[in-house]
Amino acid sequence: MDARPIGVFDSGLGGLTCVKRLMDVMPGEDIIYLGDTGRVPYGGRSRETIIRYARQDIAFLRSFDIKAVVAACGTVSTNGLEEIAGDYPIPVFGVADAAARAAAKATKNGRIGLIGTRASIRSSAYDEKILKLLPSARIFKKACPLFVPLVEEGRVGEDDRVLRLVAEGYLTPLRDAGVDTLILGCTHYPLIAGTVAAVMGPDVRLIDTGAETAEMLRRTLAGSDALSDRARGRCCYYVTDSAEDFGRAASLFLDSHVEGDVRRVTLEEKI
Amino acid sequence: MDARPIGVFDSGLGGLTCVKRLMDVMPGEDIIYLGDTGRVPYGGRSRETIIRYARQDIAFLRSFDIKAVVAACGTVSTNGLEEIAGDYPIPVFGVADAAARAAAKATKNGRIGLIGTRASIRSSAYDEKILKLLPSARIFKKACPLFVPLVEEGRVGEDDRVLRLVAEGYLTPLRDAGVDTLILGCTHYPLIAGTVAAVMGPDVRLIDTGAETAEMLRRTLAGSDALSDRARGRCCYYVTDSAEDFGRAASLFLDSHVEGDVRRVTLEEKI
Repeated sequence: MDARPIGVFDSGLGGLTCVKRLMDVMPGEDIIYLGDTGRVPYGGRSRETIIRYARQDIAFLRSFDIKAVVAACGTVSTNGLEEIAGDYPIPVFGVADAAARAAAKATKNGRIGLIGTRASIRSSAYDEKILKLLPSARIFKKACPLFVPLVEEGRVGEDDRVLRLVAEGYLTPLRDAGVDTLILGCTHYPLIAGTVAAVMGPDVRLIDTGAETAEMLRRTLAGSDALSDRARGRCCYYVTDSAEDFGRAASLFLDSHVEGDVRRVTLEEKI
Repeated sequence: MDARPIGVFDSGLGGLTCVKRLMDVMPGEDIIYLGDTGRVPYGGRSRETIIRYARQDIAFLRSFDIKAVVAACGTVSTNGLEEIAGDYPIPVFGVADAAARAAAKATKNGRIGLIGTRASIRSSAYDEKILKLLPSARIFKKACPLFVPLVEEGRVGEDDRVLRLVAEGYLTPLRDAGVDTLILGCTHYPLIAGTVAAVMGPDVRLIDTGAETAEMLRRTLAGSDALSDRARGRCCYYVTDSAEDFGRAASLFLDSHVEGDVRRVTLEEKI
């Protein structure tokens, strides 16, 4: 039994979709969440900048006595997280590992689609992970940079014409390529899964990176008897810009009222 | 005659639309441009963060021997620029001043529209500037947060269905309010002026903040005999994240190949 909290970070508040999955599968765990809202988005930044930011985020989380770190950020998970994960004495999980594994397992025809930010798609992290597990796989990728601003505008309804048009533009090439599995490689995307599914059709399996990561972490912690034995855990939220808008975002991503504190913090850095 | 360069900064590369206007009206001036691409966008950040970033941007530009500063950033111009402008021994211009003046002069029915980022619209800077010049004015404002990502995706064509749908959603309330003048309160917006004009109709005058600011600066410099006497000036460009994508952005915003250097620089800061 290990009652210490799990640390979760993201460039912004999209990672709250992953927190939701963690709470679903491990309701007894305490969670410390850091949203680097002062520097969001990471998705258009260079790899070296992303790695520097990730180190600062993890350093902040480790100032609490945590038992594991989840990088609930597709961009970080595909841009150098593996290089730095070994530097820490606790497990550091990215959302890409579990999602690649789930996709390799789910596909029947070996054709896997991946959507994400520009930086996630530019990286070959998913390709490498999937091809290690399934060398015959073919991977079709598409950067979808308008999805994040659309979600943040709350344009997530299946009846939203703009979202539908944008989704058709991005996804039609993947559908035409015959993928049977599609990785939603950004924490914002579970909120528009309905529209993505409608465009891709009923035969395409969607992989929710947050859900797969939560399940992978649960199994890892259970395997080393490191789950908490609490009935219900608590969440604390930290952001690096104004905490004012957090409530609106939380109700969008977390699909619930925030229980627990939201505080603004300062990360030391030089750009 | 003053041969020193003009310093221009923006949160990212949208301010290059203002550089273009400056080159149009004062082709002999040298220009130093700083795009804070490592921290773009400013539009969703808190006022205090925006002011801190603006001070750092101006400090960097002043490390060159410049004769004036232009904040080619609607967000900075409406969030505290006036508070800090007096701290410097050279003129510091924001794009809001000239635009407010042009709008107050252009309107016939006193109904002025303003579109911009969330932070620009949240601020009352435009209202105050316009009402000082035209106390009877009525100002109708609308935040248009999807316009910037659409422009950065290159979706600027008048035949782009997504842009048109989004523009109709944002602009219809302003058109219905009967505005006869609309301030394009963000440096990205001149690129979608065609679609904005199509939605607003032929009787609405659009105010290009960069063009108005360039003309205001030209008059100010001419008034104190501080224009350069060169036939053709040079531009130097600085960014705070990777310089790689600069060419693509420059061809979008500057509408020309970049002549001059692009360099990456570091700004000291604590978030």
